[in-house]
Amino acid sequence: MKSDIEIAQSVALKPITDIVDKVGIEFDDLELYGKYKAKLSFDKINSLKDQKPGKLILVTAINPTPAGEGKSTVTIGLADALNQLGKKTMIALREPSLGPVMGIKGGAAGGGYAQVLPMEDINLHFTGDMHAITTANNALSALIDNHLHQGNELGIDQRRIIWKRVVDLNDRALRHVTIGLGSPINGIPREDGFDITVASEIMAILCLATDIHDLKERLANIIIGYRFDRTPVYVRDLKVEGALTLILKDAIKPNLVQTIYGTPTLVHGGPFANIAHGCNSVLATSTALRLADYTVTEAGFGADLGAEKFLNIKTPNLLKSPDAVVIVATIRALKMHGGIAKDNLSEENVKAVKDGFANLQRHVENIRKFGLPAVVAINEFISDTPAEIEALKELCAGIDVPAELASVWAKGAEGGLDLARSLVNVVEAETSNYKTLYDNDASIEEKIETIVKNIYGGRSVVFSAQAKNQIKQFKENGWDKLPICMAKTQYSFSDNPNLLGAPDDFEITIRELVPKTGAGFIVALTGNVMTMPGLPKAPAALNMDVSEDGTAIGLF
Amino acid sequence: MKSDIEIAQSVALKPITDIVDKVGIEFDDLELYGKYKAKLSFDKINSLKDQKPGKLILVTAINPTPAGEGKSTVTIGLADALNQLGKKTMIALREPSLGPVMGIKGGAAGGGYAQVLPMEDINLHFTGDMHAITTANNALSALIDNHLHQGNELGIDQRRIIWKRVVDLNDRALRHVTIGLGSPINGIPREDGFDITVASEIMAILCLATDIHDLKERLANIIIGYRFDRTPVYVRDLKVEGALTLILKDAIKPNLVQTIYGTPTLVHGGPFANIAHGCNSVLATSTALRLADYTVTEAGFGADLGAEKFLNIKTPNLLKSPDAVVIVATIRALKMHGGIAKDNLSEENVKAVKDGFANLQRHVENIRKFGLPAVVAINEFISDTPAEIEALKELCAGIDVPAELASVWAKGAEGGLDLARSLVNVVEAETSNYKTLYDNDASIEEKIETIVKNIYGGRSVVFSAQAKNQIKQFKENGWDKLPICMAKTQYSFSDNPNLLGAPDDFEITIRELVPKTGAGFIVALTGNVMTMPGLPKAPAALNMDVSEDGTAIGLF
Repeated sequence: MKSDIEIAQSVALKPITDIVDKVGIEFDDLELYGKYKAKLSFDKINSLKDQKPGKLILVTAINPTPAGEGKSTVTIGLADALNQLGKKTMIALREPSLGPVMGIKGGAAGGGYAQVLPMEDINLHFTGDMHAITTANNALSALIDNHLHQGNELGIDQRRIIWKRVVDLNDRALRHVTIGLGSPINGIPREDGFDITVASEIMAILCLATDIHDLKERLANIIIGYRFDRTPVYVRDLKVEGALTLILKDAIKPNLVQTIYGTPTLVHGGPFANIAHGCNSVLATSTALRLADYTVTEAGFGADLGAEKFLNIKTPNLLKSPDAVVIVATIRALKMHGGIAKDNLSEENVKAVKDGFANLQRHVENIRKFGLPAVVAINEFISDTPAEIEALKELCAGIDVPAELASVWAKGAEGGLDLARSLVNVVEAETSNYKTLYDNDASIEEKIETIVKNIYGGRSVVFSAQAKNQIKQFKENGWDKLPICMAKTQYSFSDNPNLLGAPDDFEITIRELVPKTGAGFIVALTGNVMTMPGLPKAPAALNMDVSEDGTAIGLF
Repeated sequence: MKSDIEIAQSVALKPITDIVDKVGIEFDDLELYGKYKAKLSFDKINSLKDQKPGKLILVTAINPTPAGEGKSTVTIGLADALNQLGKKTMIALREPSLGPVMGIKGGAAGGGYAQVLPMEDINLHFTGDMHAITTANNALSALIDNHLHQGNELGIDQRRIIWKRVVDLNDRALRHVTIGLGSPINGIPREDGFDITVASEIMAILCLATDIHDLKERLANIIIGYRFDRTPVYVRDLKVEGALTLILKDAIKPNLVQTIYGTPTLVHGGPFANIAHGCNSVLATSTALRLADYTVTEAGFGADLGAEKFLNIKTPNLLKSPDAVVIVATIRALKMHGGIAKDNLSEENVKAVKDGFANLQRHVENIRKFGLPAVVAINEFISDTPAEIEALKELCAGIDVPAELASVWAKGAEGGLDLARSLVNVVEAETSNYKTLYDNDASIEEKIETIVKNIYGGRSVVFSAQAKNQIKQFKENGWDKLPICMAKTQYSFSDNPNLLGAPDDFEITIRELVPKTGAGFIVALTGNVMTMPGLPKAPAALNMDVSEDGTAIGLF
C-alpha cells in the first residue's frame, strides 16, 4: 500500500493556471508562488462581487476518537466526485500549521487518493500566511512593550497585558516566560507567554474578515490588556492597526492549489477549533461560492464544536448559509463510542456500532436544529464489515438521514460518487432553512446555556466565580452581544473527554471567559486549553531531510 | 522632489520573466512569487555549473557617518550604467530585514532613480527567506529545549546553551528572558534571549553555503552549547540538520527582481556585518557571475569591516575573486571625517574634504593590500560644490586611484556612465591579483593582529582574560583554523566610534570570541554588539496603512 507522500509524489501536477482556468480565473488574476500555488488578486475577488453564490456544503464529523474520522479526506473526495458528476466544484479548506509537522509525522492535506497538492509546500511554509500572522502578532507585542518602555502614555498595567506572543512551532518552554530582563535598556520586566501561531486572535480575524477594511477594523478592536484603572486597552489606542494590516496585506488573499483529481482548492487560514472558530477564511469560502456551482468546506473537530461555530460564528459573515451538512463517521469510531477499546476495533462488532450510533444521531439532530439537511458519509476503512455497514445504514434510515459509503481514501473520486449523488439529491430538493441557534442579543449566560442544552445535551451550566465576575465586566464593556466560542474537549459532547457516545445529564463548567473583540466572539473555557503544544520524545524532525535536488524526505 | 516610494510607484514594472530573459533565464527556470519576484530553480543553477564566470565588482565605502554614503544606491546605479554601456550586468544585493522597517522610516533597496523594485515587497515579507530562517533557528531552539525536557541524553548544561532564539522584529524586551517557567510540564527553566533574525548564525550559513549539501554540513556543525563536562554540543549531535535543511530548502534559492532600469538583480540573504560577514549569498553572487558579463555586489558597513570580510571570508567560497573594488565616498562624509559637525556640512569647506581624505586613502591602500585595483565613486549630493569635488579628484589622482562622480540618485543610469567607463577601463586592464590578507593556519591572535595592524592601522591588540581563555579552548577544540569575523564599530577604523578620519597608534581590545563553526568563522567582539535593536518612541509603524486596493501606505 502506498503512503500518502508516495501517492502525492506520483501525481503529475498541472500548472495552477490550468487548474483554475475551469472556474474562470486567468493568469492575470493570480499571484503565482511557484507553478502549483497562487494567491488570488483583490482585483479578481472584487470583480466577483455581483456573482450569484453557488451551493455550500459543510463537512463535519462525529466526536473524534483515536480511531480517526478523515473529515478532510471526505471533503476532498466528495468534491472530486461532484466534479465527476459534472458539478463545477471547488473546495475551501484550512491551511495547516508548520509547528506540529516537526513533532508528529503526518500531514493535514487529506490522505490516500483524496489529497490536496503540493502537500510538502502546504505543510511547510506554503505562501507565508502563517509567517505573516506570526509577524503581525509579535509586532503588536513589540509595540506594546515599546509603549511601556517609552513612558507608557496609555497607562497600561504590565501585569494585565493579555496579548501574548506566538511562534509557529511546538515549543513548551515558551509557554511561560519573563521578558524585559537584564537592564533598564531592555524594557519593563513582565510575565508573558507564547502560543502557537494558529491560536493568535489575528488568525481568527484573518479568517472572519470580509475585506481589507474589515480586517483593519477587527485588528483595531483587539483588546491587548487593561490600564491600572482596569479599563480595556485596544489596538486602536496604540494606533497600529494600519501597520498590522500592512503586514497582512498578502496573507489575506486566498491561496489556490489542486487535488489529485485537479479540483481547484482554496486553502486559506486555519484557526484553532477550541479557543477560536476552527474554519478556513470567510474570504476563501465566499470567493469559492462565487466561482463554483458547489463549494465543499469543512469545520474543525466534531460537529458539536466545529459545525456549531461554523453556523453561529462564521455563517453570519458569509454570503450564504450551507445548503447541506455532511457528517463524517467511521465504523471504527462508532465502535469506540459504543464502548470498544482501540485495540479491539478490527473485530466485527455490530452491537457496538449500534451502541455508538447515539453519538452520530445527536449530531444529525443538532444539524436539523439549524434548519439544515444532513447527509452521513461513512468513511470506509479496510476493517469495516458488510454487516456493520448495513447496520449503520439501517440506523440512519431509521432517522431519515441519507447515509453513503465514501471510499475516497482508497478509490479517489470514484469512491465518492454515491455520496455525491445522494448529496446532490438533498441539495436540489432545497430543504435548507437556516437559522442561528441563538440570538446574539441574549445574555452571555443564555447563549452558553442554549449551546450546552441544545447541542451538547447537557443538563446545566456552572459558572465559576471568575466567569461570573467576567460576565458582569464584559456587559459593562459592551462585549456581551458577541457570539460564544466554546473551548471544550473535542472528544465528548460533555467537558469530560472520556464520556463517549451521547452522554446525558451532565454539567458543563465555565471556568473563564476571554474577550476576542477583534475576531468578534467571547471564548468560554470549560477547562485548561493547551494553546502551545510540546514536542514528543522522538520528534518527526529527526527523520527529515532534503535530497540534493531539493526533494523533501521524511516529511510524512 | 519625489520621494523614493513615489519614484518607485511611478515605474511600470516589467514581468520578471521579461527581465531575466536577457540573461538566459526562461519561465521554466523560475518559481514565481507574484509577477515581479521569482526564485531561481536548482535545476537552472546546476545547469550553469560549467559556465565561465564574468567580471566581479565589489562596492564598498569609507567609514559611514550620519551624513550617509549610499553604497546600495551606487551599486544599483553603476550596474544600470554598465548595462547602458552594453555590458550584460547583474546585481547581487543583500535582502533587508522586516523588523527595522517597523521602527524607522526608510527602506534598504537603494534610493532615488537607483532602486530595486518592488521595494514594498522586498522590505516586507519578500519571498519568505527571513521567515524560513526564523523558523529554522527557533525550531532548533525548540528541539534543544525538548531534548532537555525529555531526559537530556546528551548531558547538555542548560546554563551553557549559546544558541538563542530570534524574531525578525526590533523587540528589546526579548533580549533577556527566562523560559520553561510555570510547571514541570513546561520544560526546564533557563535563561535565554532573542536576537533579530539577521543575527542568526543560520543567516550567515545560508549566505556562505554553496549548495544544499554544503548547507546541511554547515548546519550540522553549529555549536549549540556545552555539556556539563564543558565539551561542545553540535547540531549533528541532536541529529536535526536534515529537518533544518528542509525548512530552508526554498530559502536557499536566490531571488530575482529588477531595478528601475530593468537590470536583473539577485537579492538574497542579509547577515549582520558585525557579528557576521555582511554580504549577500555566495549562491546568488556565483549564479550572477555565471549568467552575466559583469556582476556588481556590495559588502556591509565600511571597507575595513565589509570589504575585509568579503575578501577573507566570502571570496574563498566564491567562483572567483573581485576584478575591481569601488569605494563609495561622499563630500559630506569626508567633511565629517575632516572634523566638521553634521549641522555644518552644507557649507563649502575644501580644507575639511582634504582633511577627511585620509579615511578614504587608507581604504584605497587596504584594497591594494588584497592585490585588487580600486576605483572611487563620489556619490553626488546637492550641497557638493565644484571646488570640493575638484579637490577630492586631485587627491585621488595623487594616489593614482580613478575617481568619478556618480549622480545615480538624481539621474539614474546616465548619472553612473562616467563611473562605469572608468571601471571598465580598470577591469579590462586586468590588474587584479587577489590574495587573502592572512593564512587561516595562523593562530587566532596572529590573524586578529594582521587585521588590526594592516587594515585598521592600529598599534596593537589587547586580549581580555576571557578572550585568552577562549583562544586556548578553541585551539583544543580545533576551531582555530577558521577566518576571523571582527565585530567592531563601523564608524571608525578603531574600536572608538568617535575617532573619525584615519586614526593611528590605537589599541584594539578583544573582549570575547564566539565560535560560529557552522558559518565557518570566529567572531571577535571588540565591544558590546547590539544583536536585538529596539523601537524608537514614535515607531514608523504608527504611520503605516494599506489602501482598500491593497497598496502600501507610509512604508517609506
